[in-house]
This record gives sequence, C-alpha cells and structure tokens, in this order.
Amino acid sequence: MTRPQAFLFDVFGTLVDWRNSVARAVAETLDVDDAHAFADAWRAEYAPAMAQIRSGARGYVSLEVLHLENLQRVLDAQGRVLDQATATALNDIWHGLDPWPDVVQGLYGLKTIGLIAPCSNASIAMGLRQARHGHLPWDAILGAEIAQSYKPDPEVYLSNCRALGLENREVMFVAAHNEDLHAAQACGLQTALLLRPTEHGPTQTKDLKPTGDWDQVVESLPELVDRLSA
Amino acid sequence: MTRPQAFLFDVFGTLVDWRNSVARAVAETLDVDDAHAFADAWRAEYAPAMAQIRSGARGYVSLEVLHLENLQRVLDAQGRVLDQATATALNDIWHGLDPWPDVVQGLYGLKTIGLIAPCSNASIAMGLRQARHGHLPWDAILGAEIAQSYKPDPEVYLSNCRALGLENREVMFVAAHNEDLHAAQACGLQTALLLRPTEHGPTQTKDLKPTGDWDQVVESLPELVDRLSA
Repeated sequence: MTRPQAFLFDVFGTLVDWRNSVARAVAETLDVDDAHAFADAWRAEYAPAMAQIRSGARGYVSLEVLHLENLQRVLDAQGRVLDQATATALNDIWHGLDPWPDVVQGLYGLKTIGLIAPCSNASIAMGLRQARHGHLPWDAILGAEIAQSYKPDPEVYLSNCRALGLENREVMFVAAHNEDLHAAQACGLQTALLLRPTEHGPTQTKDLKPTGDWDQVVESLPELVDRLSA
Repeated sequence: MTRPQAFLFDVFGTLVDWRNSVARAVAETLDVDDAHAFADAWRAEYAPAMAQIRSGARGYVSLEVLHLENLQRVLDAQGRVLDQATATALNDIWHGLDPWPDVVQGLYGLKTIGLIAPCSNASIAMGLRQARHGHLPWDAILGAEIAQSYKPDPEVYLSNCRALGLENREVMFVAAHNEDLHAAQACGLQTALLLRPTEHGPTQTKDLKPTGDWDQVVESLPELVDRLSA
C-alpha cells in the first residue's frame, strides 16, 4: 500500500453524530414522545430518495431539497402540520451537526499527511456550513454535487479523485459504512473503516465490523493518524 | 447595500503575485535574460486559450492543461527545448504562487463576516494547492471548474453563488480587474475592486482605477474588512 496523498470522508455518521443532533432539534421544535425515533424515521427516507436520482428517474437535486421533502413525508405520516418557515428552520439542522469528539483533532493530524476533503452526499452549501459549525479544516468541499449524482454511484468517487488532481489509488476513503467502502474500493481507492458502533443508537446491529478487506480498521481518526505515521 | 453573506475572489493578481512567483521559477529553470518577460509571455497565452473553451470551440479542460500547452508555445517561439518532466515541474509553479502580504490577514478578517471562497479560473486541484501554499483559509474551493467554463462566462459567477447556497445579491465579488467586476455585477453580485497596481510590474497601465460603479474600492483586504465592519 502506498501512503495516501489525500483522504476523502463520508460525513453523516462517520464524522458527525447526525442522530443525536437531529433528535435534539426535533425535541426543540415538535411535541414528540421520542425524538430519536422521529430522527430515525426522517433518516429512513434518505436512501430511497437518493435512489431515484441515481437511477436517472429524477434529475439531480440537492440533499437540502430531499431532506425537506422527506421531513414533510414523515410529518404527513404522523398527521402533523408544520408551517413552512419552521419546517425550513428544522431542516437546517443538517447544517449544524456535531462532530464526534475525535474528529477535529484527527482531521488536523491527517492534514499533515495529505489533502482532506468530504466526499458526502451533502451539497457544497451544506458541507461548508457543516464545516463552519464543526470546525472541520477541509482543503476543499467535494462530494456528490460535483458528480451530480449520489453515492454509491462510482462517478462520485471518481470525480472527487479527479478534483483532487490525484490517481484513485493515491486516495484513501474513510467511512463508518461497509457499503461505502465497497464502492470506493471497486473504484481503486484505498479504504479505512472507522467504527461508529452507536451511530444508530445503543441497539445498532449494522457496520459493527468489517465486511471487506479494508486497508485500515480503526476506532478513531487519531488512531488512523498513528497507523499511517508508524 | 446589504452586508454580504459571502465573498468570492479572483485569485491570480488579486490575491497572489503570480508574476514574481512565476519569474522566480523561470529563472531557476531556464537560462533566460529576463525571467519577467518570459512570465509575461506565458501569461499572454492565457486569455486566448480560455476564449476557445468559452466559445464552445473546445470542451472544458483544466487550467493546468492550458498552462502546460501555453508554456510549450512560448518555448517553441523562443526555440527552446525542455524535457517533459522539467516542463511539468515548471508548470507546477502555478500551484505555488505567493499571496500579496495583506491577504492572509484579510481573509481571516472577512471570514468573521461571511463565507469565503475563490472564484478563479484555476481548477479545484490547483486552488486547493494554492491554498495550502499560501495558507488561504477557504470555506470551499469554487471557481471555473464547477461551471465547466471560464470567467467572464456568467455561468461561473452564477454557479458559484448557487454552490454557496446564497442569492447573487448576497455575495460580494472581489477582484483587481475591472472586467471581472463588470461580469460579476451584471450577474447581480456586489463588487469590490482591490487595487493591485504592480501586478503587471512597475509600468502597469491597466486596472489602476475603477471603470465601473463598484460598491467598494480598496487598496488591501484589511481595508475592506474595516469598511464592512464600520
């Protein structure tokens, strides 16, 4: 394995704790018994919404738009009515997700090894606001928007490596999700699984261990820095 | 005038002293009498090369590619032969241009007012390397590549505002070149002329004063910060 010259990152779940951040905003906005269940229901609409765009059934629209549609779907299903301004403000929580505690230190460490950029399904507008909120010291905001598609479409990984000006094999993809890593590896990128065993709460069953032959498996970003610096 | 929520910047000449940086690299690589004249000749090929792409006569290729072709054209015109590795290394000087002395402080100041991003004809790969070299604290690397065209094509300015998630009128464009500001203003952006009277050397005649009704005319970035903070 060549030492990576750049790192691309999944963001939701891998770098930021979307579930607790969203649940907190939900609890502040709606009168619900279980804000985490609401956050889970909202997030459950995410994959099918993107699948429509990846399939070509719908042209590219940003994740902000999908998130707002998905919120409306969950509200409708629960018979809740929210005015547009409040719904939009709640939707903006996806700009203000808190990083896991190891992330900022880890990114600064990796930045001494190579270039760092998010390769998220978030739009550029969302990515740069997430970075401001979480103090994520990116070299550039890459991701789905540049490819006008959504992961795991190979074009997202490939376009992001081209934007970095690097060969795919020179780039390491870091994610808490095996599916993301399988897609990145198929494109020739190096891979690191960063375990986040509570992304989906205390009863999480998915992505608790590697399902592929990843170059690195770590429990924090600083651990990845140590491994690559050794 | 609404206070800007973001700032987009021209880079070559406005933020970085390309002429002295390129001349220094030329002097280290080639046996020439006047390295600044060589830098000027190289730069003179820039506008016509981009015009071909803006007109649609040629598909989008990155500025790295254009710069390398342009270098070869200047070498050919002077009857010079350079091996490919040396030419490529010399071409990489466009990744390593020094900022003018006021830039880093000024960008950190503007960052307390709004989002900041380059809107340069440089590729993303070039922009992020320029940022690393010059310690430019961007929120994102925008510019020509996102639009797959070159300034002053309106689509470059418009796509960059969309990527910021803002209305055109919420964004201020900062440049040392009146032409760039005319194009940005026509798209509805706010404008600031940042005077760089020695970009083209001590005998510069162009862009020494405003040729349009710009929102701000300043001599340094910290001066712009002061104006907007007053």
